[in-house]
Amino acid sequence: MNSDYTQIIENAYKFVKPIKDHGKLATYIPELANVNPDKFGVHITKIDGNNFGIGDHLEKFSIQSIAKVLSLSLAVKFLGERIWTRIDVEPSGTKFDSLLLLETYKGIPRNPFINSGAIVICDILITHLENAREEFLEFVRDLSDIPDLNYSDDIADSEKATGYRNVALCNFIKSLDNIKNDPAEVLDFYFDMCSLEMNCEQVSRSFSFLANGGRKLSDGKRIITSSQAKRINALMLTCGFYDESGEFAFKVGLPGKSGVGGGIVALYPNNFTIAVWSPKLNPNGNSFKGMKLLETVTTHSEMSIF
Amino acid sequence: MNSDYTQIIENAYKFVKPIKDHGKLATYIPELANVNPDKFGVHITKIDGNNFGIGDHLEKFSIQSIAKVLSLSLAVKFLGERIWTRIDVEPSGTKFDSLLLLETYKGIPRNPFINSGAIVICDILITHLENAREEFLEFVRDLSDIPDLNYSDDIADSEKATGYRNVALCNFIKSLDNIKNDPAEVLDFYFDMCSLEMNCEQVSRSFSFLANGGRKLSDGKRIITSSQAKRINALMLTCGFYDESGEFAFKVGLPGKSGVGGGIVALYPNNFTIAVWSPKLNPNGNSFKGMKLLETVTTHSEMSIF
Amino acid sequence: MNSDYTQIIENAYKFVKPIKDHGKLATYIPELANVNPDKFGVHITKIDGNNFGIGDHLEKFSIQSIAKVLSLSLAVKFLGERIWTRIDVEPSGTKFDSLLLLETYKGIPRNPFINSGAIVICDILITHLENAREEFLEFVRDLSDIPDLNYSDDIADSEKATGYRNVALCNFIKSLDNIKNDPAEVLDFYFDMCSLEMNCEQVSRSFSFLANGGRKLSDGKRIITSSQAKRINALMLTCGFYDESGEFAFKVGLPGKSGVGGGIVALYPNNFTIAVWSPKLNPNGNSFKGMKLLETVTTHSEMSIF
Amino acid sequence: MNSDYTQIIENAYKFVKPIKDHGKLATYIPELANVNPDKFGVHITKIDGNNFGIGDHLEKFSIQSIAKVLSLSLAVKFLGERIWTRIDVEPSGTKFDSLLLLETYKGIPRNPFINSGAIVICDILITHLENAREEFLEFVRDLSDIPDLNYSDDIADSEKATGYRNVALCNFIKSLDNIKNDPAEVLDFYFDMCSLEMNCEQVSRSFSFLANGGRKLSDGKRIITSSQAKRINALMLTCGFYDESGEFAFKVGLPGKSGVGGGIVALYPNNFTIAVWSPKLNPNGNSFKGMKLLETVTTHSEMSIF
Repeated sequence: MNSDYTQIIENAYKFVKPIKDHGKLATYIPELANVNPDKFGVHITKIDGNNFGIGDHLEKFSIQSIAKVLSLSLAVKFLGERIWTRIDVEPSGTKFDSLLLLETYKGIPRNPFINSGAIVICDILITHLENAREEFLEFVRDLSDIPDLNYSDDIADSEKATGYRNVALCNFIKSLDNIKNDPAEVLDFYFDMCSLEMNCEQVSRSFSFLANGGRKLSDGKRIITSSQAKRINALMLTCGFYDESGEFAFKVGLPGKSGVGGGIVALYPNNFTIAVWSPKLNPNGNSFKGMKLLETVTTHSEMSIF
Repeated sequence: MNSDYTQIIENAYKFVKPIKDHGKLATYIPELANVNPDKFGVHITKIDGNNFGIGDHLEKFSIQSIAKVLSLSLAVKFLGERIWTRIDVEPSGTKFDSLLLLETYKGIPRNPFINSGAIVICDILITHLENAREEFLEFVRDLSDIPDLNYSDDIADSEKATGYRNVALCNFIKSLDNIKNDPAEVLDFYFDMCSLEMNCEQVSRSFSFLANGGRKLSDGKRIITSSQAKRINALMLTCGFYDESGEFAFKVGLPGKSGVGGGIVALYPNNFTIAVWSPKLNPNGNSFKGMKLLETVTTHSEMSIF
Repeated sequence: MNSDYTQIIENAYKFVKPIKDHGKLATYIPELANVNPDKFGVHITKIDGNNFGIGDHLEKFSIQSIAKVLSLSLAVKFLGERIWTRIDVEPSGTKFDSLLLLETYKGIPRNPFINSGAIVICDILITHLENAREEFLEFVRDLSDIPDLNYSDDIADSEKATGYRNVALCNFIKSLDNIKNDPAEVLDFYFDMCSLEMNCEQVSRSFSFLANGGRKLSDGKRIITSSQAKRINALMLTCGFYDESGEFAFKVGLPGKSGVGGGIVALYPNNFTIAVWSPKLNPNGNSFKGMKLLETVTTHSEMSIF
Repeated sequence: MNSDYTQIIENAYKFVKPIKDHGKLATYIPELANVNPDKFGVHITKIDGNNFGIGDHLEKFSIQSIAKVLSLSLAVKFLGERIWTRIDVEPSGTKFDSLLLLETYKGIPRNPFINSGAIVICDILITHLENAREEFLEFVRDLSDIPDLNYSDDIADSEKATGYRNVALCNFIKSLDNIKNDPAEVLDFYFDMCSLEMNCEQVSRSFSFLANGGRKLSDGKRIITSSQAKRINALMLTCGFYDESGEFAFKVGLPGKSGVGGGIVALYPNNFTIAVWSPKLNPNGNSFKGMKLLETVTTHSEMSIF
């Protein structure tokens, strides 16, 4: 994807935009159901400094689970390999048995991107940081170069009021001894973390350190080591899309992460990061049009890591 | 990995060779238990035509599940996308629930590399080919440039006599209507397929079409399309190592496939294929020293797709 | 249920007969699908020697899983408590996880009345008897006082040709080391055992030793000890109706066993045995009208062990 | 068990008392770990009015899950058959998959005696009673003829502080829409309910209405109908002892219910209720010596419902 990358993105956007959207708005977080379901935007940030966006790429959305990659990066940065005694790095296979697998594996979540794993990451950060909530926010403000980025209380409160399954997961892991702090405190941080809002341009910029060997694009600052970046990319490829991780690797062929807000970020190491947003989700909980767009882009550009 | 690739392989081989082998010989196929457990060899085939091997790289071993990539390639070549109605492309998550997942997903195996999936591929080949057993052998003879390659009756008979779990899997899938032929016939072909024997040099050469955009290295003949090759590579990355697929992606960062004979093949698209063999297996059923060697190679060479 | 027992049975029969039958004929054994679905009969045998039948109570049907109580009785008679190292005595909870539970419990079936457990009983009988197939037939001929009782080749062949799930189960248990003989031989005996045909009168008579402290009703011959009879009755109560065992205990309150041929036998210790037959099955695989009739009988007679 | 019942109880008590106790004190509720592990008492209440106790039968213990039969009785009394749309009546098969089964059965617990089912009963009582906590206490005071019976704050607080798994269960069911009230309120009542303390004499007296066709023994007052009593007895038989329900039916042959405080109550309809207490539990969570004693009693007395 050289000089014609803007053309490829624009063509893919125009191709996917009119397709009938078979997805459905996430309703389990009431606030998310208030979003305009027709929003659709995409932004690419190349590591050579060029970038391009189209559609609603400058409108903020709730990044939700996309933030799990950032909290993992912070945990890896401060604690390194030690965190892998508390979570594993394997695909979970299926939504269906998330609780079953926790019991089988004695409270060790299968990977840091399913809810149980992200909750354990929150617990780790609370234990090792002075003020996890504030330090995580500072970390993302730095990555994104958005000094006034903040948690969305509306989104967080909405999820706190209805997130019974996450309360169940956290208490279940606590009963299996893999949560060290008070479950209520861990859950508060978890819901806050997922409530961050960014637009496509900001997401693609924030994630560019993972396509750039662990260094921030804007100032070259090292965030994590090159090896750590590769491993997080590998995790996104094998575990970034719930039950559809294999499908995404198969059809798109890039590491990525989705969120129930309808956002997806994907990246080609040493080349680019791309963020897409469209709120309606397919049955696996991933943005219907977001998946289509990324598939179209990599099919036409022949850009995949495989 | 440029001119110094022989050095990297040699160093990794010498580093891993003296490490205490915590693995165990596979015993569930009696014939496999007769192999000298100290064998250790590796061979790399670069797509620029260079290649290099060391140790027992010219000694034949039972490639076992490594053959599943080849039978999948044959099915994809002849039937294309149609096969994905019969098998899925998702990691299975865990050894533990292979039968449970079959029931949940109505007889559709999670992917073509777990036993259930490879058995369904055999069933598909039997349905669509005149003589699946012979045509598959021809296909691999062509890929490997070994005109007298053959099935090992000793290995196949040994597994036929003791492969109760595979008999169970095949009949279970039949009861769920996703096997179309007689289970006994399907199993015969499956056991034959897994009984192929090659050495490291031959395995790395046979697999080079997957690193070469679907074309055979020796004569440029197209085996499958470039897009099909990418998708098979993606499948190897997400599903090639049973419960350890995530770990392999995380630590090695290359698509690959292992067999209980102690062989592993891995590849870097557009660069090289590498085959390693050491018979003793770790608890997840993958070669203990083979995993170590590949981890060492990619750590030192910084060659990974991530 | 004293002198008026004929009245209670007759009333229940007349009450249930016109009810719309929401059940469906078993189709997984082709031969069973040829039965007239409107057949309906019932027969009670009291241990004081009286008995009474109505409807199609003298017409033979395939007793199927009802035979599992008889093969268990034979195993208990010859081997006593030793068999409980090979099978457990717990309800299986759900159809859903029968294979999962086998893996969890290392090949030990949850109880002798689910298919896996009955298959292990067949394996035990083959190991310990000279000729299990013949000796089991003799045992049932004696119990039933039907000297020319025989296996139905049509039924057995029909199931042998299509019983893939039972083939899967038997081979799976073999792979977990809890089948000692050749799976094919065990399955042959299992399918024969399930192919026995009797009418309601014969079934209720054959089972009366379990209501009579282990002694045959016609000649007082001891078949098993009183304690063994009680334990088999307890097993029928907790495990006799697959996923509906709890429901049957809750609504009928008697030990019993059903078969997919549409037969059900139930008994009140020291009082009576009752056999009912109606071929159409509810979603749990138990005779729709059979369940209704027994519920009606025990509700009106207030006869339940609770 | 006629005039010699005192002898049978006394002999069984003396036989079991010196047996080495292989059980372990429950430790997951810290307060329960403070109990003297050598306590051992038993009390029988016959419906003819006679009764007899021996050992520590007049010392109070935490009845824990035994109370679940009483909360079920209260729910059945006020709501009748309606409650069975919210919980099922089937054995759960195994501790292992309690959460898995909840997901499979869409939040409907398998029966009212596993924790998830008892929590749903608490939710039902909160919805339908003015003040569930007080009315349940009144109900048990009446049954037991102990006017000053009360919840134990020490026990309830101890469990509230550590009952993460029950918090997980309740929130998980809430996420599946089968809890109607606030999970925190439901759990408070649940923990209170389990904190009741009684001695063996009081437990056997309180449960005698279930052996007496639904009528209280002391004053003949109808608590529930005869049919309701039979059904609760059936439930105790099939589901009263977790993973050991089948074993208890097989070896003891009476309906009963155990608690992690080391108490067990069992009953023979129209004959007697018996309560035994010994704090150390077998691996299935049932009193080690309690199980032994009941097995001894029914073996020697030949009193079982089978």
